[in-house]
This record gives sequence, C-alpha cells and structure tokens, in this order.
Amino acid sequence: MKLYELKGDKERRYSLFSWRTRLALAHKGVVPDYVPVLLSDKATIAFSGGTTVPVLVDGDRAVRDSWAIACYLEDRLPDAPSLFGGSAGRGVARLVNNWVDRAVLPDVISALALDALGRVHPEDRVFFRGMMEKAFRAGLEELAADRPKRIERFQRTLDPARATLKQQPFLGGDAPAYADYILFSPLQWARCLSPEDVLRPDDSLRAWRERMLDLHDGMARRVPDARA
Amino acid sequence: MKLYELKGDKERRYSLFSWRTRLALAHKGVVPDYVPVLLSDKATIAFSGGTTVPVLVDGDRAVRDSWAIACYLEDRLPDAPSLFGGSAGRGVARLVNNWVDRAVLPDVISALALDALGRVHPEDRVFFRGMMEKAFRAGLEELAADRPKRIERFQRTLDPARATLKQQPFLGGDAPAYADYILFSPLQWARCLSPEDVLRPDDSLRAWRERMLDLHDGMARRVPDARA
Repeated sequence: MKLYELKGDKERRYSLFSWRTRLALAHKGVVPDYVPVLLSDKATIAFSGGTTVPVLVDGDRAVRDSWAIACYLEDRLPDAPSLFGGSAGRGVARLVNNWVDRAVLPDVISALALDALGRVHPEDRVFFRGMMEKAFRAGLEELAADRPKRIERFQRTLDPARATLKQQPFLGGDAPAYADYILFSPLQWARCLSPEDVLRPDDSLRAWRERMLDLHDGMARRVPDARA
Repeated sequence: MKLYELKGDKERRYSLFSWRTRLALAHKGVVPDYVPVLLSDKATIAFSGGTTVPVLVDGDRAVRDSWAIACYLEDRLPDAPSLFGGSAGRGVARLVNNWVDRAVLPDVISALALDALGRVHPEDRVFFRGMMEKAFRAGLEELAADRPKRIERFQRTLDPARATLKQQPFLGGDAPAYADYILFSPLQWARCLSPEDVLRPDDSLRAWRERMLDLHDGMARRVPDARA
C-alpha cells in the first residue's frame, strides 16, 4: 500500500489526519510506502477525486479521508487486530472522530497556526497562511495573540478524555484502538509544529501521550519534532 | 433482577442515570422489578454501599452506578445483544459516558432544574432544590434566568453527535448501543421534567430521539412526560 501524506520542512511529517492513518496502518501490521506531497500540490493527489491527504492506494484502489481509510483497512484486513472492536465500536468511534474534529481541533490548530507556519514546507507557507486564515476568519498573528485562551479551552475540552484515561490505559480500554489515534493526532500535529507543549506539566494526559508515542516501536516519537 | 430508581410525581420515572440502566436491561432482554425510591430516601438503598440510584440487584449481588451496571450486564449476559460490541467498544463508550456527564449534562440540568422542581415528588422538593443549588452554586431561579444561554450551549455541545447521526442511524452504527442510551438519558430526563423541548424544531437530532423513543416497544415513550 502507498500513503500520500504531507511533506513538512526538514522531513517533518505533520499531517494531522495522516497520523491517524499512519497509526492505523501500523495497528494492522502494514508498512506502506510513504509519498510526501506539498499541501499546495493538488495535482499529485487529483487521481483520488479529492484535494486532501491522506490518500491510501491499495493496488488499483484509492481511498481518501482518514475515516474512510480506517473503515477500509478494518474491512480489508479483518484478521489483523481490530481498530474498532466490531460494528458498535465503529459507530461510537465515529462520534469520537466528530468530537475531535469539531470540538477539539479548532482551538489547538488556531492557537498554533503561526508557530506551524515556520515549520511547514517553505513552498507551502503562502498557501498554509491563506488556508488557515480563511478557516478561522482571522489573521495568524491575531489568532496567536489569543493563544492562551484557546489552549486553555482546548485543555478543558479534553476533560472527558482525561477522566477516561484515569480509568483505563487507552480510550480503547486495555489496548489502543482507532479512537486513541484520533485523539492523539492533534497532539502529534502540535508536537511536530510548535515548541510549546499544549499539555500542562501536571496534566495526567501526558502519561497516555507517552504510551501513544511508544506504540508500534515508537513510530510517532521518531519523527522530527518542533525542537529539531 | 430488581432496579431501584427514582420516584417522581405522578409516577414520572425521571432518573437520568436509571434511564441508561432501564434501556440497557431492555437491550439485554431483562424485565426487572422496579423499586421506585425517593431521591431523599438514602436508607432504602444504603445496602448498596452508595447513596444514589440506579442500584441493580441480581440475586444476592447489588451493583450501583449506571456505568458499572452496564459493564455488569454485559459480562453477566454475554449471549444477549452486546451493549458495547467488544472491549474496544466498551473503552470508547466510557469516553462517551464521561463526555455526556461532564460536557453535556451540566447545561441542560441547570437550565431545567426549576422546571424539574415542580415535577419531582413533593416530598423530595426541598432536598432536590438543595442538591441542585449546591451542585451549580446558584439559586434555581437564577439558573432558570440564564436558561436560553445554557440551552443554546447544550445544543452546541451536541454538535458532534448531530454530525454522527447524520452519517448513521445510531451512535452504535446500524443498531443502538449503550452509547445511545447514555446520550438519550438527558433528553429523556428533560422530557419527563420540562414542558419545553430542549431541541429546536429543525434539529436533526429529533429524528434519532424518535427512534430512541420507539425502541424496546416504545418503553421510553410510554412514561408520563412533563405535559401529562
């Protein structure tokens, strides 16, 4: 299989949604060929029918959108460890997907977009700024000025996950599941793109984040972070 | 099995957490004996080791706390339809449980507590007011004055569930799962205790709520609501 994902500066693989797919592939025991593409390069992925990564290519089949890819992998590789644990688990994981995308991401992405600007690929910077400023209807400098409030709200939104991860080691229970990859993705994005830690020093979520960084032979820990 | 739950005025069974258990029992095909108790009556349920309903009694075993009861039923009746769909599904359902309890409930409960006061059992009204005012650190009248803002925030918090239920008929996917019972519980509580609908007329969640009211031979629809 081949995974199209974002190319950052200095090989930083920062694509938030591609991280969900990277970890889902590792969960399923698949080592894909990675095809890093620029955020602004829509021509390379036009074959997928969409304009965003991740795009997974499996033989002559192309699947786009991280959620659709997770479902595809689950159905395509039913004997590998499950990402969802059955159909009810898949249904509920979709709620987690929507919760993270709609309630968790906007604050952390808008807060760190200016930091991120200096770490995306130089050829992508104009495009990245335009995309973010359109999405959040404000200038990146303006968004950054509001950072403490946004990060605090982001931390507060994570409260239900924090409570859950005091009760069990992973969102998937005793073992990681796709829901863990969903929630981990913005933390990994932040780690790749901002030198500032988005979790407070005493946040109990840090222990879970360490467990996530350790998974699959430390694959998430190995990529260059924003301090590199 | 026996289920201890709250006794409302005119047989209104309004206990939010007991609704999770009621529906979970029906899901498992169990028809329990119901034991309605006053909110202020802690003596009757003291045997459970706690001070809140639901309490499930199964032979000489007592289980308290709706989440613990759901897990107990799932393990005790493994051949009945699953509430979680396996261990990953159970893990993720716990996140939903924490999300509803921490992000969804406070706004809707505080907004409707004054409405509720007139519909809880007359002997419970002083106790109910004290409990609510302590929990929300404000008088019920003060909370009610702030109602439109709280209801609007409640509706906004439901956004990830709304998106999910446009993509699939239940949070559990094609069929209801325990996550559906968790999210339905505050809507059922509101339906029992306030004449005002907490969902806007055009809210797409209404269709899902109707499906929930229909489940298990319409058991949630049959109890007297606040218009009765």
